[in-house]
Parts: sequence; C-alpha cells; structure tokens
Amino acid sequence: MADKPAIVLLSGGLDSATVLAMARADGFACHALSFDYGQRHRAELDAAAVIASHLGALVHRTLPIDLSAFGGSALTDMSLEVPVDGVVADEIPITYVPARNTVFLSLALAWAEVLGARDIFIGVNAVDYSGYPDCRPEFITAFEQLANLATKAGVEGERFVIHTPLVDMSKAQIIASGQRLGVDYALTVSCYQANEVGAACGVCDSCRLRKQGFADAGVVDPTRYG
Amino acid sequence: MADKPAIVLLSGGLDSATVLAMARADGFACHALSFDYGQRHRAELDAAAVIASHLGALVHRTLPIDLSAFGGSALTDMSLEVPVDGVVADEIPITYVPARNTVFLSLALAWAEVLGARDIFIGVNAVDYSGYPDCRPEFITAFEQLANLATKAGVEGERFVIHTPLVDMSKAQIIASGQRLGVDYALTVSCYQANEVGAACGVCDSCRLRKQGFADAGVVDPTRYG
Repeated sequence: MADKPAIVLLSGGLDSATVLAMARADGFACHALSFDYGQRHRAELDAAAVIASHLGALVHRTLPIDLSAFGGSALTDMSLEVPVDGVVADEIPITYVPARNTVFLSLALAWAEVLGARDIFIGVNAVDYSGYPDCRPEFITAFEQLANLATKAGVEGERFVIHTPLVDMSKAQIIASGQRLGVDYALTVSCYQANEVGAACGVCDSCRLRKQGFADAGVVDPTRYG
Repeated sequence: MADKPAIVLLSGGLDSATVLAMARADGFACHALSFDYGQRHRAELDAAAVIASHLGALVHRTLPIDLSAFGGSALTDMSLEVPVDGVVADEIPITYVPARNTVFLSLALAWAEVLGARDIFIGVNAVDYSGYPDCRPEFITAFEQLANLATKAGVEGERFVIHTPLVDMSKAQIIASGQRLGVDYALTVSCYQANEVGAACGVCDSCRLRKQGFADAGVVDPTRYG
C-alpha cells in the first residue's frame, strides 16, 4: 500500500526539520511546503530545499506570498530591528508576524484538499514558543475545527488532523528526538537574521533558544556562527 | 473623528461591490483587498480596481497568491472546463476552489491586525451560494473564533468581527440594496470565464444566477455579454 500523503510545513529551521523526520518515521508520504513571505532570513528557504531532500520528502514546494506588503513585523519590515536583548516572557515580541500560522495552515489546507491528504504537520511549540499566539494548542484546535467546516472533504464527513508533535517538548527534547531520527542540524537555519550563506548571528532570540537547546540536550551544536 | 478602518474583500464581482458600498455607508474607512490567485476570469481584477475607486475605498491592494500551483478547481486549472449546464443543488461544483475563503480571510486578518482594524467584510451568501462550504455561516463563526485566538490583538482581549451583510439575502435583494447605495453594476464582472474586456459568457452558473437576480429585482441588467 502506498504511504498516506501528508503536508508538512517546512521553514528550514530546526523545529520543522524535526517534524518532517517524525512524519517520515510515521510512514507518511511527505509534501513539504515552504513560504517565501518576504522574510529577512532568506537563507532558511535554501535550507528548506536541502532539508526536504535530505529527509526524504516526496515533493517540496515554495509558495511566494508577500506578507511584507502588510508590514508590522521585524521579520518582514526591514525598517524594524530584530531584538537581541532577550525576550520578556509575557510580551509578544516584534518578530511576531501577524496571522502567519493562520495564513500558512490555510494554504497547507488548500494543497491538502487537492491532494486528498487529511494530515497536516506543523512544528509549533508551546514551551520555547517566544510568546506567539498562533503557536498555542487552542489555536491549533480552532484551526482543525475550521478546516472541517471550510472544505468539501469536511462537509463530506472526512476529518483533517493538524499534527503538532513538538507542542509539549522542550528545545532540548526536540533536538534529542531529531538526532535519533538522523536529522543533520547543520543544515537547518534558525537565526532571524542569518547572512546569505546561512551563518547565524548568535544573539537574536531564536539563536539563544537554539544554543540553549543544544547545551541542555548535551549535543554538540553544529550551527555556523558568522 | 476618523472613520474606523475595515478590510473589505473585493473580487470585482456583484456581491463584493455591494458589500463595499454597505461598509462605506456604515462609515468605515475601507481597505479593499483583492487576490490574483491564478483565476481564469482575470477581467474581475481590473474591475476590482475600478470599483474600489468608484465606491470610495481608501486603499485597494491586489495580492498575488498562486493557488493554481495546487490545482483542483475549474477556476484555476485551465485543463478543467467550467460547467454551463446548471448546478445540481446538493453537489459542490468543480468551480469550488479548495480552502479559498479560508486563505482569503487569513490574509485579510493579517492586514487587519497590522492596520489596527478589527472589522473584516466578506460577501458570502448562503442563499445563492453555489454550494460552497466556505460560504456558510458556521464557517464564518469558526473563522471569527480562530481570529481571536490567532492574533496578538485577540490575546490582548480585542475582538475581530467578520461582517457578512449578504449572508441571508437573495441575489435580487443584493442588487436592489446596491442600487440604492449607488453601485454601478456595469462595472462588476461575475462571469467565471469573462473575456479580456470583461464581457460575460451568459451561460456559466455565475452568469445564470446574476441574470436571474436582475430579473427578479426588476432592475435592467447592465451586464455586457460577449
């Protein structure tokens, strides 16, 4: 029997690479989906293509979608600076991209319905999640409900499942799991302001969480700092 | 006091033009949003720009988003034919674009959050709605719930409202309302396969519903048939 198709959102970062490895290990035929949304850390898009191939995705597609036309985030608006002085835990940081995961999951849903896939994987995380509202379990549950009302497949009684295998894991646990599944983290780019060859700044929130994760997991950090 | 900002999804068709006129009449500063999603009826995009100006939108933006990359609909896949023999009422037609309104509302939400707008207008209709699942009131309610979980504004206790002023109206009622508000329906394009100058085929489902609407409203049909 052919593997069941699934959509896997793949950013090129550490988390989504791990999710792709998990979906493959679960036996899904993975259709990896990346977005060129005007992000300043463009090296992650090149990384996504390499990771998709490395981890055995059946197909990888990068969809251009110009969220920078709306502005409002340090990740897409080049006039705003990426903060490097540490996150205040109860504040939503300026790197939040408005409605990003809603937009990404909607497009994943569109592709899933066309393919006949009912499974969508996304690497959201409610532990080291930087305070983004659209990484919380209640958001994912609401999207799942929406998906089943929004689609022809849903109306016909089929059920979409949004898989979030990382949701309750620490960064260290994610890294340890990925290592067991053969993820080469040297290929992944987490830095919000990685340079053109993918070298990380080492000081943004995303770099700090990643560094700490390798330290806590007791795994040698393969990240290239530039 | 300045008008409250709102996002109005504007396709260039009869319904969304009427919604824009209604939102203006309610005193909103309207930010009209159209999508270039690979639709075959491209004349509607030109129509949207003219209508936005005609009906006093503050801003009109057309976002490219390549849903045709996913295929699966006669509206975006040029190898599928648009049906002209009438809709079977309890079947979802091939002109259904997977997850289209989910994608469109997600992008409207992203722009709304950046602007500080909390009101989004969409011309869905549960009467003459061609059987699309993402035009039903329960879909809209689910999206509203999602919006308030997905966003920084929602987390901070503000509430997004998805306005669907046409939801319970017949096509004839929509036309009569729009006429009272000064909508020039000659500018609107409903046809699924309008030619390059916007002339309608007169036989697709969308043309048939529109024709019948003018007849039922007792309003002269200004549509150009080509």
